[in-house]
Amino acid sequence: MHRAIAYIQEHRDAFVEELKSFLRIPSVSTKSDHKGDIQKAAQWLTEHMQRIGLEHTQILPTAGHPIVYADWLHATGKPTALIYGHYDVQPPEPLELWVTGPFDPTVRNGELFARGAVDDKGQVFMHLKALEAHLKTQGCLPVNVKLLIEGEEEIGSPNLDRFIMEQKDLLKADVVVISDTAMIAKGVPGITHGLRGLVYFQIDVEGTKSDLHSGGFGGAVVNPAFALAQLLTQLKDRNGRITVPGFYDDVRRLPAEERRALAGLPFSEKKLQKDIGAPGLFGEKGFTTLERLWTRPTLEINGLYSGFIGEGAKTVLPARAMAKISMRLVPNQDPAKIARAFTQYVKRLSPKTVRLKVTELSGRGTPWLAPTNHPAVQALARAIQKGFGKKPVFTRTGGTIAVVPTLDRLLRAPILFLGIGLPDENAHAPNEKLDLDNLHHGMLSAAHLWNELAEVILL
Amino acid sequence: MHRAIAYIQEHRDAFVEELKSFLRIPSVSTKSDHKGDIQKAAQWLTEHMQRIGLEHTQILPTAGHPIVYADWLHATGKPTALIYGHYDVQPPEPLELWVTGPFDPTVRNGELFARGAVDDKGQVFMHLKALEAHLKTQGCLPVNVKLLIEGEEEIGSPNLDRFIMEQKDLLKADVVVISDTAMIAKGVPGITHGLRGLVYFQIDVEGTKSDLHSGGFGGAVVNPAFALAQLLTQLKDRNGRITVPGFYDDVRRLPAEERRALAGLPFSEKKLQKDIGAPGLFGEKGFTTLERLWTRPTLEINGLYSGFIGEGAKTVLPARAMAKISMRLVPNQDPAKIARAFTQYVKRLSPKTVRLKVTELSGRGTPWLAPTNHPAVQALARAIQKGFGKKPVFTRTGGTIAVVPTLDRLLRAPILFLGIGLPDENAHAPNEKLDLDNLHHGMLSAAHLWNELAEVILL
Repeated sequence: MHRAIAYIQEHRDAFVEELKSFLRIPSVSTKSDHKGDIQKAAQWLTEHMQRIGLEHTQILPTAGHPIVYADWLHATGKPTALIYGHYDVQPPEPLELWVTGPFDPTVRNGELFARGAVDDKGQVFMHLKALEAHLKTQGCLPVNVKLLIEGEEEIGSPNLDRFIMEQKDLLKADVVVISDTAMIAKGVPGITHGLRGLVYFQIDVEGTKSDLHSGGFGGAVVNPAFALAQLLTQLKDRNGRITVPGFYDDVRRLPAEERRALAGLPFSEKKLQKDIGAPGLFGEKGFTTLERLWTRPTLEINGLYSGFIGEGAKTVLPARAMAKISMRLVPNQDPAKIARAFTQYVKRLSPKTVRLKVTELSGRGTPWLAPTNHPAVQALARAIQKGFGKKPVFTRTGGTIAVVPTLDRLLRAPILFLGIGLPDENAHAPNEKLDLDNLHHGMLSAAHLWNELAEVILL
Repeated sequence: MHRAIAYIQEHRDAFVEELKSFLRIPSVSTKSDHKGDIQKAAQWLTEHMQRIGLEHTQILPTAGHPIVYADWLHATGKPTALIYGHYDVQPPEPLELWVTGPFDPTVRNGELFARGAVDDKGQVFMHLKALEAHLKTQGCLPVNVKLLIEGEEEIGSPNLDRFIMEQKDLLKADVVVISDTAMIAKGVPGITHGLRGLVYFQIDVEGTKSDLHSGGFGGAVVNPAFALAQLLTQLKDRNGRITVPGFYDDVRRLPAEERRALAGLPFSEKKLQKDIGAPGLFGEKGFTTLERLWTRPTLEINGLYSGFIGEGAKTVLPARAMAKISMRLVPNQDPAKIARAFTQYVKRLSPKTVRLKVTELSGRGTPWLAPTNHPAVQALARAIQKGFGKKPVFTRTGGTIAVVPTLDRLLRAPILFLGIGLPDENAHAPNEKLDLDNLHHGMLSAAHLWNELAEVILL
């Protein structure tokens, strides 16, 4: 084992140069004119995988961008881990805000700047190098591994569920390792063990069959924009509490111990407020910001439209008004039950002077929370402690990772998050970057993880 | 006089054919590719005006589309009337809903179908024919007349105020006649003697400096769309009463007599509801629909925007939300005072967790109400009674005619509305039409008006 660790330490600088060649490929998944670059990135991966000794390397087609697969399965009697990551990146625009080009990777002050540096090429690369360290120094891995690196994460993984369903046997594993998340702060390595779920709705309110003149009809006809505003206002009370009946019934109470643990994390509300440029923070009364973000459900307006929204004035009495509403769910809320309760409540709130339509959009996401005392999670904790020289904290994220419930449901394997990003590394924004210390400690942790997992008996 | 009347009766059918040639010109003012047609329509007018014996006919340039002017000023010692109308039309789209082409004028069941038939070419044409009847049969007019026919009414008359200000001497008159309105129902000729005023605002609410991810930040950050909805909801109570402090202070109480007169008008709420396809009507408690439309002020949302409004779902926590709000005012509300009260109230309602901006848009419109017993108004009433064979009713409109306060202020002359449209003639909509009986009776009324006005001493 110490030879694998030494290998990573010896190649620290060379690895950064190798990562740069991966980052130079502008594999933007959302734009069709980057299709060739997507192909190039997939090719870069397979060639790299072959070179470091992985097997069955292949580029598997989907209805969209292909999925890269590879494995190494010679650790007889040992667990099999499935590593998930993605090789596609967000568009780099607005380009003028980048200090150096998004696809011209540059190191400044121990940080590597490039689109995809942290999200997610750097984290995929971390795994490749940890596997290489084992394979080059020992000729084998302590466990079996499979890699599933997709090319459509930044556009919502539209073909991933189907792929996993169809390739269930190929992907069969005892444990899943996802590396596409961030730690709470530099120097505070962490394990994400909770995600929020999601239901998403569109509400359409119709007052009249077509737009009317606000002079000729104003004052005597229902205004659907007003009706919608009144309806929306009734979805939350002044304390930020959601008023959908039964909404909180199944919300897991936060044990005092977890509450204390959250309070002990290095998180600054002041810094958050400054980072997002808000005059003030606001959320459900009785909870801290971190509790609101990680452990409490939300109901947010994602979009709002009615009438004339161009420049200047138009005296229209709108026929219709529309709102997009999403709810983030936490354990043990059931997306189906919440969707039903929301629809019924909104219909009940609607005045009789308008026609209301409630439409559920996009897939439901189930909230996810893993017990921190699971042997696989404990193995990851030990690996991180060895890799970073520091005991990891347990964190959650307020977001929803679509693939998690799918993997959970289809593979029935514990999911481990080994994420080495930082909250201020500008994923999805200009000047995306990756802390090179974290990359190095991440590689060490990944290398240790396979040894730790080899010792765990997974059922 | 009877010779002018006979002339109109003899040429009844021929006039319709002439009007068709005016309606065939697609003088859509909002589209730059119709600039040539605008020119053509202005030319058609001046040639027609010259042919019927009007003088000083000219096409006067503005920063936008030109204004057509003509006069006849040989009635020494008699009053001078300024006739206002417009030769531009609304766009005809959606074309597929027209039974016959918008610029292929067609008569069906005594109605002439074409874009501009009622709004406003038909009503301008009515005046030309009444003047022609006098000039061709008597060689003179009973009064002096000036015609101001603009080409930008359908785009908000952006250059008219300035033109009137600059041409104050040219346009000087003792009375103004506007023909661009409708009567309340077929067989019920009327005189519009009241208009509502207008103030128009945009409210911008900013929560954060840029859009955030609703997973990563939802529940802990103020949602500007929610803040805006809450603010809007507080602008009116459940009874439809506007809650801006002082809003109703200067509203003129409706005398019992006027209330009775309104109740006696042939107006059906059921028909209105059916025409606009509304599940129900709604307005300020304690008032009839006609009272709400004509005599009560309003506060309406004209536009609403926040976040993602495209198809499908996007989990964005919007940085900003926007609403366009307009208020229709009634005598004796002062637009400046209402604008001030609204701005102060909205600022007071805004939570401290957002940045609020209140911007006044477009020109203010002063409410207008003319006494029905003015000698000029009584002259118009007699002319209509002779033209339609029926005593006119006094009506108002809920709309705002921008030129009215300007004319009122600059010319200080009484304004008469001789309008022959009907509420269901689809102005601004497909299958716009004009009732040919009304056109004929309108011409007779216009011809009578000049005789009646010649007898009135205006100060």
